[in-house]
Amino acid sequence: MNTFGQTFRVTTFGESHGPAIGAVIDGCPAGIEIVPEEIQAELDLRKPGQSELTTPRKEPDRVEILSGVFEGRTLGTPIALIIFNRDMRPYDYSKLKDLYRPGHADFTYQMKYGRRDYRGGGRSSGRETAARVAAGAVARKLLAEKGIHVVSFARMIGGVWLDDSEPEISDIVSAKAVDAKQLAELRAGIYGSKVRCSHPKTAKAMEEAIKQAGEEQDSVGGIVEVRAYGVPAGLGDPVFGKIDARIAQAVLSLGAVKGIEFGEGFRLAEMRGSQANDLFTNESEGNVLPETNRAGGMAGGISTGLPIVCRAAVKPTASIGKVQNTVDAQGRPTELTIEGRHDPCIVIRLVPVVEHMVNLVLIDLYLAQQAQRGWM
Amino acid sequence: MNTFGQTFRVTTFGESHGPAIGAVIDGCPAGIEIVPEEIQAELDLRKPGQSELTTPRKEPDRVEILSGVFEGRTLGTPIALIIFNRDMRPYDYSKLKDLYRPGHADFTYQMKYGRRDYRGGGRSSGRETAARVAAGAVARKLLAEKGIHVVSFARMIGGVWLDDSEPEISDIVSAKAVDAKQLAELRAGIYGSKVRCSHPKTAKAMEEAIKQAGEEQDSVGGIVEVRAYGVPAGLGDPVFGKIDARIAQAVLSLGAVKGIEFGEGFRLAEMRGSQANDLFTNESEGNVLPETNRAGGMAGGISTGLPIVCRAAVKPTASIGKVQNTVDAQGRPTELTIEGRHDPCIVIRLVPVVEHMVNLVLIDLYLAQQAQRGWM
Amino acid sequence: MNTFGQTFRVTTFGESHGPAIGAVIDGCPAGIEIVPEEIQAELDLRKPGQSELTTPRKEPDRVEILSGVFEGRTLGTPIALIIFNRDMRPYDYSKLKDLYRPGHADFTYQMKYGRRDYRGGGRSSGRETAARVAAGAVARKLLAEKGIHVVSFARMIGGVWLDDSEPEISDIVSAKAVDAKQLAELRAGIYGSKVRCSHPKTAKAMEEAIKQAGEEQDSVGGIVEVRAYGVPAGLGDPVFGKIDARIAQAVLSLGAVKGIEFGEGFRLAEMRGSQANDLFTNESEGNVLPETNRAGGMAGGISTGLPIVCRAAVKPTASIGKVQNTVDAQGRPTELTIEGRHDPCIVIRLVPVVEHMVNLVLIDLYLAQQAQRGWM
Amino acid sequence: MNTFGQTFRVTTFGESHGPAIGAVIDGCPAGIEIVPEEIQAELDLRKPGQSELTTPRKEPDRVEILSGVFEGRTLGTPIALIIFNRDMRPYDYSKLKDLYRPGHADFTYQMKYGRRDYRGGGRSSGRETAARVAAGAVARKLLAEKGIHVVSFARMIGGVWLDDSEPEISDIVSAKAVDAKQLAELRAGIYGSKVRCSHPKTAKAMEEAIKQAGEEQDSVGGIVEVRAYGVPAGLGDPVFGKIDARIAQAVLSLGAVKGIEFGEGFRLAEMRGSQANDLFTNESEGNVLPETNRAGGMAGGISTGLPIVCRAAVKPTASIGKVQNTVDAQGRPTELTIEGRHDPCIVIRLVPVVEHMVNLVLIDLYLAQQAQRGWM
Repeated sequence: MNTFGQTFRVTTFGESHGPAIGAVIDGCPAGIEIVPEEIQAELDLRKPGQSELTTPRKEPDRVEILSGVFEGRTLGTPIALIIFNRDMRPYDYSKLKDLYRPGHADFTYQMKYGRRDYRGGGRSSGRETAARVAAGAVARKLLAEKGIHVVSFARMIGGVWLDDSEPEISDIVSAKAVDAKQLAELRAGIYGSKVRCSHPKTAKAMEEAIKQAGEEQDSVGGIVEVRAYGVPAGLGDPVFGKIDARIAQAVLSLGAVKGIEFGEGFRLAEMRGSQANDLFTNESEGNVLPETNRAGGMAGGISTGLPIVCRAAVKPTASIGKVQNTVDAQGRPTELTIEGRHDPCIVIRLVPVVEHMVNLVLIDLYLAQQAQRGWM
Repeated sequence: MNTFGQTFRVTTFGESHGPAIGAVIDGCPAGIEIVPEEIQAELDLRKPGQSELTTPRKEPDRVEILSGVFEGRTLGTPIALIIFNRDMRPYDYSKLKDLYRPGHADFTYQMKYGRRDYRGGGRSSGRETAARVAAGAVARKLLAEKGIHVVSFARMIGGVWLDDSEPEISDIVSAKAVDAKQLAELRAGIYGSKVRCSHPKTAKAMEEAIKQAGEEQDSVGGIVEVRAYGVPAGLGDPVFGKIDARIAQAVLSLGAVKGIEFGEGFRLAEMRGSQANDLFTNESEGNVLPETNRAGGMAGGISTGLPIVCRAAVKPTASIGKVQNTVDAQGRPTELTIEGRHDPCIVIRLVPVVEHMVNLVLIDLYLAQQAQRGWM
Repeated sequence: MNTFGQTFRVTTFGESHGPAIGAVIDGCPAGIEIVPEEIQAELDLRKPGQSELTTPRKEPDRVEILSGVFEGRTLGTPIALIIFNRDMRPYDYSKLKDLYRPGHADFTYQMKYGRRDYRGGGRSSGRETAARVAAGAVARKLLAEKGIHVVSFARMIGGVWLDDSEPEISDIVSAKAVDAKQLAELRAGIYGSKVRCSHPKTAKAMEEAIKQAGEEQDSVGGIVEVRAYGVPAGLGDPVFGKIDARIAQAVLSLGAVKGIEFGEGFRLAEMRGSQANDLFTNESEGNVLPETNRAGGMAGGISTGLPIVCRAAVKPTASIGKVQNTVDAQGRPTELTIEGRHDPCIVIRLVPVVEHMVNLVLIDLYLAQQAQRGWM
Repeated sequence: MNTFGQTFRVTTFGESHGPAIGAVIDGCPAGIEIVPEEIQAELDLRKPGQSELTTPRKEPDRVEILSGVFEGRTLGTPIALIIFNRDMRPYDYSKLKDLYRPGHADFTYQMKYGRRDYRGGGRSSGRETAARVAAGAVARKLLAEKGIHVVSFARMIGGVWLDDSEPEISDIVSAKAVDAKQLAELRAGIYGSKVRCSHPKTAKAMEEAIKQAGEEQDSVGGIVEVRAYGVPAGLGDPVFGKIDARIAQAVLSLGAVKGIEFGEGFRLAEMRGSQANDLFTNESEGNVLPETNRAGGMAGGISTGLPIVCRAAVKPTASIGKVQNTVDAQGRPTELTIEGRHDPCIVIRLVPVVEHMVNLVLIDLYLAQQAQRGWM
């Protein structure tokens, strides 16, 4: 299943070291202004080589629009987005042909398909997520026109937590809404940091944690937080398309993500009902809202109007320089030292990817909701 | 979206206090032996009133098979399962017509649809999950014939944790496989406990926690753990249908669940790569398996052959006896005391529901995988 | 695949002689007034035993609404509609257990599923279409509120054709639009006739053809014509969801239908382009329309604003009283005389079914189109 | 909806005069040998400029495989196929910017989307079908490995019918099965003819009909017949995915097709039941088959094992050289003479396209059926 969404459907394709990766968007409304530069700008936030903290693979990730856009606006027909792979070094990987790398999908792809593209993980490579970002950039454009703005950032890296009490972050977590200008500022702060954390002191500590792991031929994980502002009350499709169910699927479909929680998440499990419930209040005339947002912007899987809040647990990069025990395709024990190019902390590059997966969910639910209106 | 699954598709319907709830299964293979009693037995694990720790609503949850089964076996045609509602007391709810209960979906349904069935939450009621259990019971039957067995239990309730070191549980967590007989024993231990925890001492403490909250007109949450044994390597559909992505959607589609994690989950985010990776070994001739199972039975979203392991965070029941502030449909502040029938800890009744949601995911992925075979 | 539609999704279930048949509608907008009587009225148009020309099976086809409707209006949640089977006579069919009836699906179901419900065709029985009519009645209600009205009638039965030049029919075929009142009159004329043909003289001849075939222990086929008025320009979803592609799937999914054509249909294949093209004209200020409607209300699979017109070829009823050669499940030649209850001409009862299948397509495309609006 | 299929899902994209068209296949089993030349060979059967009877647009229709194939075999991951457009002459079309061409989708796309790519019809161009052929070529490969072979040909062009009694065709119509070698010969005969008719005398008359229409600045239509051999009994998915329903959707999704019939089709509507029924016989030990094939290889929408037979009515090309009345975007009457490149008879190039749409349906139903096996 390489298609995501019911109404705004994104199909991605491509292997890490094949000719190209890409996405086809079906169900995008007509008339939206789209220029390649806007998509490119989002891809640039994810592309490798932005700092010494990411893989040195040189991929400009240059996107081309092959269809669905005419005279600068969407046609309502499928939008095909393509990124040709450039810096492929298949020879780096030939020795992996008969080995199963720990923490990677080599073994499971072999079991599932009876064969695999062993060059850099093939389809299971994180490179596939570039196509999602390209599609998400289109979703982002549509959502922005409706006042919906999504932002994500590193909440924790290598054990270093960003605390809500820091002034740079307290604005984000306390905001009930942000406009386009505020969003741009938020993102500037986040992406101005190598580790996608707008609080300089915390960012510095995160960087240190990554560097130290790298020096030890090891890697670190972390937590990505996402906040979606301006989501109108009423999005989310009971019962199986609940807004959290859909976001959970979207975010867990990223290989390195091992958990997700909404609002207070796992902490809610240890609370009493009287502590956990968000009480309703009448913010302003005729504008009912929960006073608190422990549930992360939803009730019964439908948005309340408060920000959608979730956090994704990202495991440490599986590719490490340390010697690891493994077996080959014949089951013979062997040792493996990964020398290829890889990220010592994938959280950095996942930050925009998670954000765009949430964009894809929200536009899909937004359009689905639009279909149902008109008799209300 | 009231349908779950691509190949084994389950559509549920029904409101809490309407005439009936039910499920239609489309895509179930022909030839499976199904007797109503087997479905009933699963429903009985979830039904209310099993102990003083659950709601006193008297619902026998008697299931009827309306179609798709003939002479004791499935026909390959849709299986319609229906449960008529019996113990409806709409008058209990008339006062809620114009109120938004904190932590419930009253407000969001109203925002989404412009109206709602206010009797007991209508479609947003946990009662809807009975239909999922009925469908899951059919999935369970199919999986069992392929040696796939799913079990779930309360890992934590009201702050009381079941520890892996307890002898009753260490067998479960260390097992790489279980057969039908062992599964039956495991379940007997779990469902023999009022709180779905097979370790008597822990169970006792959990019960106390629930009772104490109940006495204080409050409620508690907890954590449900699921383990699926016998899942063959190769299930899971990259990239958006990864086994964890699909399970996450399935489990988060339960109203009270606020988070999910796989394997070591959120703890992985704080580990180094060298600690997190599961190294491959050659268990027995030609049988490659990871030595450890930190990833929870999967790599790249595809099953490895080790048990699938996940944990769901369940918030405390929203309905509490304590007085709460809220607003009515006109936005006027008011106070609310919920006197209706409700569970002081919904974890107990969610245990079988979560198990059956995982059954639904696994049979769907199993059938999808079968479709792809034949050229390999 | 027992679900039809993308946005307005209808799942049907049930065997001819099982406990019940039914439909679950998912994706119906909230707020529509629905009373059971309106659905019942549509079912009554299809039910058996309306005249001596249809099967004497006594099925009141009484519909019950199990969910999705509250205080007389749709909730936006699934609408479950159920019809319990009443006049089941399984003994009529026991002798068919090991026989393959010619023209029926006994053999193919056996090949597909390895077993079958041999009582009256089970799932392959035309009885299944009652569930479609029930769902179509809801679609009809929604469409009517948007000024879309569908009507169908017998264009040919047993070789007797209804000619456009007849005054009763010329009004229908020349109308570019009809309102609710005119529609009611049209339908009154059609359903006032035993054979669903509002021209008395032609109807009489059709009746004679059916009776004569019946006396000879044989059956006749015919052609059902459908016209959908008020469909706004712009419905239909390129490229695979073209309005004609979707209607074709819908109508061919009826067992007895063996062909379909749109507008001038097969006659267009023998025309020149200059004869076939519908030229555009400016009907009234700012209201562009094709002058003629040879294409049947569409261009490139999208509606033009003129009536959608199609005709379905219906084969003669497969169940006939004449002795027929066949084989049994062991492949042994045998003779078969069908004595059960059956329709000598299924066209009569298919007229409302075809109409409702078109209703289901149109509401689905209408809602899909609504999803895409908002940025235009 | 630009995706076709449930299990073998094909998504197409691209406008006639944009940078490229293409298809992404999701759900193709792993391990199938695929070389670009095989796909190219199928595209070559459809490409323009093969004779003086088709448009002179110079499109080599060179296909590239961007993903999903590695070391000559499918990976089980999405197969992206791309065809860059070469011979684009947008200036040919600038004058059509504000005109609605009769018989084309200019007007309806404008109504649907509020804008359109007016260059050569954009997405509504027949050029889009090249992507379908590319995908169909992959389906064809899989089906061939299972002994399923599909062939199509021109049954009628410009009023000239190919008669079953002609020796070249009687072999085709009477065959109950063909093997790969016979199929190759059949296709050689058909595609050796400019008009896709293997009977030279009929082909000659068809050519004449086309030329004469062309000389008169006009166009002709015709009928494409498809026959699928080797389809095992049991394919087709009741109730909405009947084999004829799915083929009907597939074939009617081609812009120029205005009708379809299966087996004896519309002629069945005028028959008696005793004439229409296919009686079962025991062809050989344990091999039950209908004796005749009036139903076109199916019963109740499921294949019987006899050849699937259907015929599609193709309207004459809408683009003609003759002066036609139309209106512009402002509704002002004007005259139009189409000078661009177009086919005087689109049947010729539709023959392989229809064949491949049937391939896409059959592989999808084949895989779906495989999913259900294993408990039988």
